[in-house]
Amino acid sequence: MNYPSGVKPSINRKKTNYTNRGMTLEEDINLTNEYYLNQNLAIIHKKPTPVQIVNVHYPKRSAAVITEAYFKQASTTDYNGIYRQRYIDFEAKETKNTTSFPFSNIHEHQISHMQQIIDHGGIAFFIIKFTQFDETYLLDSKKLIDIWNKQFNGGRKSLTYQYIKNNGFLIPFKYTARIDYLPIVDKLYF
Amino acid sequence: MNYPSGVKPSINRKKTNYTNRGMTLEEDINLTNEYYLNQNLAIIHKKPTPVQIVNVHYPKRSAAVITEAYFKQASTTDYNGIYRQRYIDFEAKETKNTTSFPFSNIHEHQISHMQQIIDHGGIAFFIIKFTQFDETYLLDSKKLIDIWNKQFNGGRKSLTYQYIKNNGFLIPFKYTARIDYLPIVDKLYF
Repeated sequence: MNYPSGVKPSINRKKTNYTNRGMTLEEDINLTNEYYLNQNLAIIHKKPTPVQIVNVHYPKRSAAVITEAYFKQASTTDYNGIYRQRYIDFEAKETKNTTSFPFSNIHEHQISHMQQIIDHGGIAFFIIKFTQFDETYLLDSKKLIDIWNKQFNGGRKSLTYQYIKNNGFLIPFKYTARIDYLPIVDKLYF
Repeated sequence: MNYPSGVKPSINRKKTNYTNRGMTLEEDINLTNEYYLNQNLAIIHKKPTPVQIVNVHYPKRSAAVITEAYFKQASTTDYNGIYRQRYIDFEAKETKNTTSFPFSNIHEHQISHMQQIIDHGGIAFFIIKFTQFDETYLLDSKKLIDIWNKQFNGGRKSLTYQYIKNNGFLIPFKYTARIDYLPIVDKLYF
């Protein structure tokens, strides 16, 4: 095959080339959810970023402009929806840390929200990406909450990378579903 | 009983006095959901207003200020969550109209979102308030979608007040749960 300008691309690409195109975890998950939606597999959406609007300007003949607003802390998790008739809820976080996932990435009210979801029969988990390894894991909320609670009795204030590797599930990268977490949900919760 | 400054309040208040304290339907529903949450009955939250953030200013020693942003159209409904292990999803709208609820209050993508939720086994409905009558109704999504679809074949572009009265369920006002919709959900979907 002849390539334009005669340059033949290297066949020997690293596997991670495909996944590392400067997409954030959030962008990857949003694309995945869009794919799931188009395939009619699951209805899962990201909630908008909560913003406290203070001032809005209404110019003539054009759209209203918010001229003063502040970021608010989210009271729940980022993603929720329905899959196989079940309520599903998750939070996605990435860390540059290579040895652990610090709890400082999570807010206490997110933990209590997750606990409520579990108590009411919903599915709740975390998607955690170690960006340095380009590895993304699904971890059941109960496992995280257990260790989270222990920090108040002198336990660790993080999950070790090893713990997540052993207790979570590595989410494979696919072209169609970049963070293809539903097959893991199938295995874990159905 | 003696009242301060000697003024005895009138006992003969109108019934609607209690509900008409300048609260919007959204505020009433938010308080109701908070009550349901505190009573551990249901986990239902309003999604934040979607905003497209264009400019953020980061002043020293104080919180980031969003200095330019625009309102975006929501891609789903306003409220969702879990109740009795089921996924629940609804949209709340109020109208000053006294004869009908115009479809201009609803976006097409909200209709398709509702249809998807129904197809996936979730519970989906509308809460519609006629502010002039101070009457709030719960209407199953299927009923609204049926009539919505007919508008493209020459049907009405609204639901009549009478239709909603006959096919919806009047939501009673209570002190603890101002828009107490869960008992109607129990009857309709369980």
